[in-house]
Amino acid sequence: MIHESVIIGNNINLGENIVIEENVTIGDNVKIGNNVIIKTNTKIGNNVTINDLTVLGKNTSTNKKMARKPSNSQEPLIIEDNVIIGCNCVIYRSVILKKGVFVGDLSSIRENVTIGEDSIVGRSVIVENKTFIGKRVTIQTGCYITADMEIEDEVFFGPCCSTSNDKYMGMGNYKHQGPIVKKGAKIGNNATLLPGIVIGENSIVGAGTVVTKNVPSNKTIVGNPGRTLE
Amino acid sequence: MIHESVIIGNNINLGENIVIEENVTIGDNVKIGNNVIIKTNTKIGNNVTINDLTVLGKNTSTNKKMARKPSNSQEPLIIEDNVIIGCNCVIYRSVILKKGVFVGDLSSIRENVTIGEDSIVGRSVIVENKTFIGKRVTIQTGCYITADMEIEDEVFFGPCCSTSNDKYMGMGNYKHQGPIVKKGAKIGNNATLLPGIVIGENSIVGAGTVVTKNVPSNKTIVGNPGRTLE
Amino acid sequence: MIHESVIIGNNINLGENIVIEENVTIGDNVKIGNNVIIKTNTKIGNNVTINDLTVLGKNTSTNKKMARKPSNSQEPLIIEDNVIIGCNCVIYRSVILKKGVFVGDLSSIRENVTIGEDSIVGRSVIVENKTFIGKRVTIQTGCYITADMEIEDEVFFGPCCSTSNDKYMGMGNYKHQGPIVKKGAKIGNNATLLPGIVIGENSIVGAGTVVTKNVPSNKTIVGNPGRTLE
Repeated sequence: MIHESVIIGNNINLGENIVIEENVTIGDNVKIGNNVIIKTNTKIGNNVTINDLTVLGKNTSTNKKMARKPSNSQEPLIIEDNVIIGCNCVIYRSVILKKGVFVGDLSSIRENVTIGEDSIVGRSVIVENKTFIGKRVTIQTGCYITADMEIEDEVFFGPCCSTSNDKYMGMGNYKHQGPIVKKGAKIGNNATLLPGIVIGENSIVGAGTVVTKNVPSNKTIVGNPGRTLE
Repeated sequence: MIHESVIIGNNINLGENIVIEENVTIGDNVKIGNNVIIKTNTKIGNNVTINDLTVLGKNTSTNKKMARKPSNSQEPLIIEDNVIIGCNCVIYRSVILKKGVFVGDLSSIRENVTIGEDSIVGRSVIVENKTFIGKRVTIQTGCYITADMEIEDEVFFGPCCSTSNDKYMGMGNYKHQGPIVKKGAKIGNNATLLPGIVIGENSIVGAGTVVTKNVPSNKTIVGNPGRTLE
Repeated sequence: MIHESVIIGNNINLGENIVIEENVTIGDNVKIGNNVIIKTNTKIGNNVTINDLTVLGKNTSTNKKMARKPSNSQEPLIIEDNVIIGCNCVIYRSVILKKGVFVGDLSSIRENVTIGEDSIVGRSVIVENKTFIGKRVTIQTGCYITADMEIEDEVFFGPCCSTSNDKYMGMGNYKHQGPIVKKGAKIGNNATLLPGIVIGENSIVGAGTVVTKNVPSNKTIVGNPGRTLE
């Protein structure tokens, strides 16, 4: 079912069982796989590939227990030119995927997120809301990128890294702040970053490290709790 | 394809390409997304939302190598009022989701599990079989909740926590027992809980902690192996 | 949509909204769920079950930033007899699943991977490209199996283990090498294995251990960094 208000460019390859809702716009040379669902107002550029069984432009939802209600943003999902999105992904409204971004299979990206040019979001990666990701960033498979996080250009996350933004674990009205990862920093696989810590420019976090405090620029940190090597 | 035996209430919003099998019952004010598959006998209450590409009421399966054959329970999946289920989820038979439960995208819940009122199961969370989860529990994104686990009311799991239930790692006929997490305990992100350990009431497990023994009530534990702070 | 060139055996159970592309062959007694997508040239044996919303035989893709371009292998996906594949999985071309393999829901397996007879790949497991997995291996839920890894027969991975293959984290042309896990080794939940390390035969890695160097046969290693117990 493609809504009559949808605007589609030239040289489009559409799969089976697709649903495209009202006011979606799609550029030229776009490939959309089978069983893809594209929600209202989503904007897709040129030379984009969306693989099978993916949902684009999902609205936020909530239950009684959730302390922080998701903003009911009415901004659309914007997918710029040359973006590739995998199979079985879920990408929300109010997300901007800049030119050349790659999103792997089974990934999910919440609302109010921007991902910079040519960055890679690996398979099964989860990105929470209100997080900013720079250009040429690599986030490898299985990483969890929390809300309220800042990731500068050319940062590298190895697989399965975990981050958090809530120091008091659901107890109160503390301002949530995810980690801030400065330009060119590299985070080893399965590292754990605590709320609000800063990883300095070009610093290295060893695999499996639990980072409980700030790391200066150009340093290496390892262990649990993490200790900076001199 | 909606089987002729299906009973559907008033004010229903159905997506495209839906499959609903025999003897399913659906209450009033229910929204079912595109490409949703609802298996035999599933019972859905009022004011429920099921998002796109989700499977409800899946049967268990097994291969030759599996030591523990899944029970071939014939109980249906029961989804009570005001439940919200995300996109691309897989929820098995013999599960009860109590009123107001929230299940995030890309999550999976195995058979013989009960989840209490208003609890939150985050995105990409996996819950294994024979586990009991209380009321107003928060299980954040990417957690792995093993089989044979007990989680009491108001427990909080930060993102990416890992649990296990098999002390001998597939070697023998040891009774499997997952961790027991008492009321109000809080588990930091990417913590590791070993088989059978008990986390006491209102205790706090620091992010990245490896918990190898019981934690008394009202204590904090950190490190690898975890040490209780005095 | 089933392409006219598809060859299908006897006693087949097909779901709704299926897409089967050209030159696929399917044996006898096969069950294919709803919304399953089977790409060009995939070969499926006898007594195979493919559950709902799964993609088989996906092609690789890449963006500008990726250092290692995926090989554009033209080998098909081969699924041997008695294999079971869960819901919402994504399995690439150039994969061989040997007889009796079990793949859980929401899992993904990249190209140039072989998985041996009767092995188990749990739910939400990710297997990267160019990795070899032996017979009767158990990889529990949520594990991340990196590229260029060797896993011998009867190895056991507990849930949520993480591995990596790139010592320099995206910096250069270093030869990538994942961990090598010898016959019968057992890896505890949420363990972290660094690039190129060898886990000896029948050795045990404790839950939450960060393994930074080789482990001899028949040893146990625990902690962060991991220390071998005498």
